[in-house]
Amino acid sequence: MTLREQIQHKINNKTKPLGALGRLEEVALQIALIQETLKPSLIKPHIIVFAASHGIANEGVSAYPSEVTFQMVLNFLNGGAAINVFTKQNEIELILVDAGVDHDFEPNGKLIDAKINHGTKSFLSQSAMTEAECQQAIDKGKEIVKNIADTGCNIIGFGEMGIGNTSSAAVIMSKLLDIPIEHCVGKGTGVNLDQYQNKITILQKAISNHIEFSTDPMEVLQTFGGFEIAMMSGAFVAAAEEKMILMVDGFIASAAFLCAFKLNPVVKDFAIFCHQSEEKGHQLLLKSLNAKPLLTLDMRLGEGTGCAVAYPLLKSAVAFLNEMASFESAGVSDK
Amino acid sequence: MTLREQIQHKINNKTKPLGALGRLEEVALQIALIQETLKPSLIKPHIIVFAASHGIANEGVSAYPSEVTFQMVLNFLNGGAAINVFTKQNEIELILVDAGVDHDFEPNGKLIDAKINHGTKSFLSQSAMTEAECQQAIDKGKEIVKNIADTGCNIIGFGEMGIGNTSSAAVIMSKLLDIPIEHCVGKGTGVNLDQYQNKITILQKAISNHIEFSTDPMEVLQTFGGFEIAMMSGAFVAAAEEKMILMVDGFIASAAFLCAFKLNPVVKDFAIFCHQSEEKGHQLLLKSLNAKPLLTLDMRLGEGTGCAVAYPLLKSAVAFLNEMASFESAGVSDK
Repeated sequence: MTLREQIQHKINNKTKPLGALGRLEEVALQIALIQETLKPSLIKPHIIVFAASHGIANEGVSAYPSEVTFQMVLNFLNGGAAINVFTKQNEIELILVDAGVDHDFEPNGKLIDAKINHGTKSFLSQSAMTEAECQQAIDKGKEIVKNIADTGCNIIGFGEMGIGNTSSAAVIMSKLLDIPIEHCVGKGTGVNLDQYQNKITILQKAISNHIEFSTDPMEVLQTFGGFEIAMMSGAFVAAAEEKMILMVDGFIASAAFLCAFKLNPVVKDFAIFCHQSEEKGHQLLLKSLNAKPLLTLDMRLGEGTGCAVAYPLLKSAVAFLNEMASFESAGVSDK
Repeated sequence: MTLREQIQHKINNKTKPLGALGRLEEVALQIALIQETLKPSLIKPHIIVFAASHGIANEGVSAYPSEVTFQMVLNFLNGGAAINVFTKQNEIELILVDAGVDHDFEPNGKLIDAKINHGTKSFLSQSAMTEAECQQAIDKGKEIVKNIADTGCNIIGFGEMGIGNTSSAAVIMSKLLDIPIEHCVGKGTGVNLDQYQNKITILQKAISNHIEFSTDPMEVLQTFGGFEIAMMSGAFVAAAEEKMILMVDGFIASAAFLCAFKLNPVVKDFAIFCHQSEEKGHQLLLKSLNAKPLLTLDMRLGEGTGCAVAYPLLKSAVAFLNEMASFESAGVSDK
């Protein structure tokens, strides 16, 4: 029997009707395959939140002012944000990274300084970052993940904070999947209908201003990306290289995953799509990736919150595989 | 401000876009309303699994032999079933109840003896139970829940084990909601297509054999119920009277909830529908109850497993309400 067959056999012989644990069985199979074992385990789970400021945020695409990005980083550091609460609840280590916030933070042991620049340029009229900055962000994302992998961690999720980054994610999705921008744009943190129409118009203009660029993922990231998105793309690639389980969060994280997937398709084998965001483009993005999200709770917060609240389901998947009795061991009649 | 307005105000002022935690916000509001407080808490969570044997199981409606019911009770007692694993993972107290299994168990401190009879009669040709037995089952369910409430527990879920009980649940649903039986019947533990057609035919015959009975919930329970379903109906009613949060599991638990709802509609205010089963009738049953399930993981195991795996989401809802910073306290700009 192949390892896959052995795992499936183990799942099928648990004291339950065939397939009765549904998606949890699929997750158990995937995790066991990633770890190449019949007895997988989740060790030192981590969520990294990458934060960065966006030049495009000053073009009126967001409901919130750009300063909220650094204010929320301070909120993370003080333990007051949703991701703090959910990682604490589920015993997940939270790592905060300044990928390029337009603010000079006091040195803080809880914050990794990976600042590429004080925010991106507005991609309405120029490239968001230079080629060197883009490469630097990707490399930094890889380095951070490799350091965490070295501690023995085998499961990692990524979150983000960056006012304006649904705009960046929408354009990346539109360019890499060749889907009209209006199908990729949602209301982000909550713009009203007028602002939403304006957001679409601005992004259409931005795309036509950069029509000379290809759909190469590096070029798309450089032109329309955020530092946190580029860094997260590198982080996904490195985590897959380290054979870690990747927890994919919402719209922006999925756009970063899409870049990683275009750079190295093997990331898909390691990815568990934790939730489907209420943000409009996310459903379409997941469908394009042929990805089935675990949760659909109408969340649209980012920060890695979808990963954090879905994590107990991954634990359930691993636990039933390791701990449930088989028909034989329990003396229960199979059909 | 009313309490509802105060809770909503507290939710809206957390450091996140308005409504960005989606269903978790609805759950937080509901739990706070149940507990009539701005600072709810989940205390001593319990799941009770009611087990019983079904006369209808001997008519060829199930993929498994009837003896699996008592074998699975032994598996619960030995800690080998899915519900053991998931309650252990999420620190939920598991209570096992013999509501009417056709087996004489050795006395066991982990098993509550509430045996009404050694299984129901086959409702193909006679009433499943007597009127007295039905009332006794309901009363016993209430008594068990009140004893647990007395320990300080404020959140409870119910599961079941009973080969043949999807047949019972389907008929109850059909009768109480006036929906043709073929829309209520699914493949249960996994019958094949021939067996599925046969299951529908048998249940159609059973319904026409009892055409003289009304759609009074007590009469429906007595005629077509199982002891675990009747006991669970009483348990739902008592738990709502105790102002506990009710976690509703899959198809059979939802059919028991439907009986409870017909007996006392107030149970709905206290109910959180934990998951949507893959069992065919469940989606329709939830829709009829105007209930939105938290999880859709294609599970169809029963035992309370949907409650157990959804429980961490309830904890997340309570945690964000209690622990997240507000815009004001965190110094974050609101839009």
